[in-house]
Amino acid sequence: MDIRQTATAAKQAAIRLAAVDTEMKNRALASIAEAIEAGREQIAAANRADLERAEKENLAAPLLKRLKFDYDKISDAVAGLSSLIGLPDPVGRTLSATELDAGLELYQVTCPIGVIGIVFESRPDALVQISSLCLKSGNAVLMKGGSEAAETNRVLADIINRAGVAAGIPDGWLALLEARSDVIDMLALDDAIDLIIPRGSNAFVKYIMDNTNIPVLGHADGICHVYVDKAADVNMAEKIVVDSKTQYVAVCNAAETLLVHKDIAAAVLPAVKDALCAKGVGIRGCAKTCAIIDATPVTEEDWSTEYLDLIISVNVVDNLDAAIGHINHYGSGHTDVIVTADPQRGKQFMDLVDSACVFVNCSSRFSDGFRFGLGAEVGISTNKIHARGPVGLEGLVIYKWRLLGAGHIVADYSGKNAKPFTHRRLDT
Amino acid sequence: MDIRQTATAAKQAAIRLAAVDTEMKNRALASIAEAIEAGREQIAAANRADLERAEKENLAAPLLKRLKFDYDKISDAVAGLSSLIGLPDPVGRTLSATELDAGLELYQVTCPIGVIGIVFESRPDALVQISSLCLKSGNAVLMKGGSEAAETNRVLADIINRAGVAAGIPDGWLALLEARSDVIDMLALDDAIDLIIPRGSNAFVKYIMDNTNIPVLGHADGICHVYVDKAADVNMAEKIVVDSKTQYVAVCNAAETLLVHKDIAAAVLPAVKDALCAKGVGIRGCAKTCAIIDATPVTEEDWSTEYLDLIISVNVVDNLDAAIGHINHYGSGHTDVIVTADPQRGKQFMDLVDSACVFVNCSSRFSDGFRFGLGAEVGISTNKIHARGPVGLEGLVIYKWRLLGAGHIVADYSGKNAKPFTHRRLDT
Repeated sequence: MDIRQTATAAKQAAIRLAAVDTEMKNRALASIAEAIEAGREQIAAANRADLERAEKENLAAPLLKRLKFDYDKISDAVAGLSSLIGLPDPVGRTLSATELDAGLELYQVTCPIGVIGIVFESRPDALVQISSLCLKSGNAVLMKGGSEAAETNRVLADIINRAGVAAGIPDGWLALLEARSDVIDMLALDDAIDLIIPRGSNAFVKYIMDNTNIPVLGHADGICHVYVDKAADVNMAEKIVVDSKTQYVAVCNAAETLLVHKDIAAAVLPAVKDALCAKGVGIRGCAKTCAIIDATPVTEEDWSTEYLDLIISVNVVDNLDAAIGHINHYGSGHTDVIVTADPQRGKQFMDLVDSACVFVNCSSRFSDGFRFGLGAEVGISTNKIHARGPVGLEGLVIYKWRLLGAGHIVADYSGKNAKPFTHRRLDT
Repeated sequence: MDIRQTATAAKQAAIRLAAVDTEMKNRALASIAEAIEAGREQIAAANRADLERAEKENLAAPLLKRLKFDYDKISDAVAGLSSLIGLPDPVGRTLSATELDAGLELYQVTCPIGVIGIVFESRPDALVQISSLCLKSGNAVLMKGGSEAAETNRVLADIINRAGVAAGIPDGWLALLEARSDVIDMLALDDAIDLIIPRGSNAFVKYIMDNTNIPVLGHADGICHVYVDKAADVNMAEKIVVDSKTQYVAVCNAAETLLVHKDIAAAVLPAVKDALCAKGVGIRGCAKTCAIIDATPVTEEDWSTEYLDLIISVNVVDNLDAAIGHINHYGSGHTDVIVTADPQRGKQFMDLVDSACVFVNCSSRFSDGFRFGLGAEVGISTNKIHARGPVGLEGLVIYKWRLLGAGHIVADYSGKNAKPFTHRRLDT
């Protein structure tokens, strides 16, 4: 099948999948968990083949680690499926219910989005998580994983697809795309695909956003800031800066820029510098920073650079407004943190910083679907519509308006002698 | 100012507008109502100038009627502002609240989207409604109205903008674009504009959707269906078909296609035909239809045509599945109706028809923000994400994640001896 046929089949499957009840979806998830457990030898063998190829091609060690999908990781994936079964069904939830008039009742009810195209990095566990989140939310899914994981993904997708269909999920609900050209082709199918979720490098995500009319959910950059206010506790600030920068540097919710209020800079910067240097972090500072601590002079470009590395840029600012202005100008709307002992200033920061996640007195690294308690996440969105921040099951549904009447017509509610609407809220 | 400067100013205003409280927004709406009331002579004079020009240019009578903005319509607009003041603020609503651990609390709170670009038809009342809905939801707005209403729009926008700013709304919150080229320029400003809502002709909306990376909320076509099931009451079916088709033909929620179950076609079609003919509706039928009633043979193109006129296409289908298949294939995902006495078949229709509005036993014409009790609408969306169907205030907000800690860092929740999260739901 070419990609258009695959997408059309997914669209057909999605229509029927929207009407599949919670029980059948959970039974299918249980079958998938069993099938993965039963197929673990085959999966692990495919993964070894991918790993051998990747080693020959000199893939970097952190990437090899992400690619690895051994018995332990297979067990984790199966455990993830079990907890997904336990989560409430996001479909069929009544968001509002209104009597328009006697016998004419309007219900706003959640439903699946339809067909989701997801492009993800070389982590086979992502394939299990993404496909199962789509199934639970009643969506058909077209997936393209990193080519390094091709063998593992092929085996996994086949096992998951078969187990789903055997449990009653409509055929066509899952398809694995294998070529990068399939992704390019997918971007043109706005009549069949309802949403694209790209994960991966900035450049790749940006390319997708710029080359499709299909709505895209995701983020290109993660330029996160920690702002240490004049009213901050210096020890707390040091802990939060170090955790935000170094707890895991290669991820989108790691801090890239530190902003410090001028009144506290002399107290904060030396302590923070020592702590960051102990973790091997290089510091690029503004002129005021360099007057207080030893640092490489920062350039304008630094403020909008996502290092994903042991580097941090530091700016001393005159006041809270200047910090907010810096973040709204250079940031990517992902996650930004204020450290302050003054709740009013914390509130002002959260009100005025235009980002998906605005935190007071904690690390930017909390910006994550699992830590947020969403169960699992399909990605992190810096969109301003639909879903923002870590996106779990709720981001994979939309709603329909269901209106139930008994022969009601609009002519009766128009012109002279128009009947009034009651617009009475019904219990949901 | 050029359009980029205007949009940048709007973005700056939007940041501050997001933090404006409900009381000030309502006070601003009241000031705007007073200012419109006080300026009604000036507004009506500007409108007379537009009308005179339009008459000279031989604008069609229905368009002249929409363009007219006399004292009565001004009073209606002022009344609309009063009811908007009475609606709850969509901003600042807590959607979820979760304790992640002791002292670490996560709140998902609604906030404005930011800067909204709205292009609308030649109805000056739309300008009042759109700008006030944006203000109430804390969004800055760039508006382009129909050129026929240029004088009226200029006076209205000026009055509304000044009254808002005088009441404390940040300068730059409202701008009127005057040239069509401004709209084209606006489509490129994806760094400053967060959402575009186009209203108008199919071709124009489609052009916008195809030529911007900014999210677009709206609908191009409104190809709505009424399906008369075998289990339908014939009288009820007749009433609903006539209302859906003829109550107002030139609107997106009017029916364009009638589908009839073959078992009831002989009973339904003659009655429906007489009632439609009495309203002047021309019928284009499939072969089975033409065997029962006198009708013009339908063409394949008819099924995907939005007539917006006194024409209806009729298809006799074999069963409920065929009706659903026809709608999902040819429809535009706007509003579709089933007439049936069987609730199970009604549910099946609502589950499987992939449209924003799915109705049982009532007219497609109910698909409207005012009738739905949303207060007012910015438009009707056939999007599959964010907002679907009639979009009121709720569609103009998104949310932020606010996390409040006391020095919490992720290192404590990672690796060996990781602290567990509590993920306890808090009362909202």
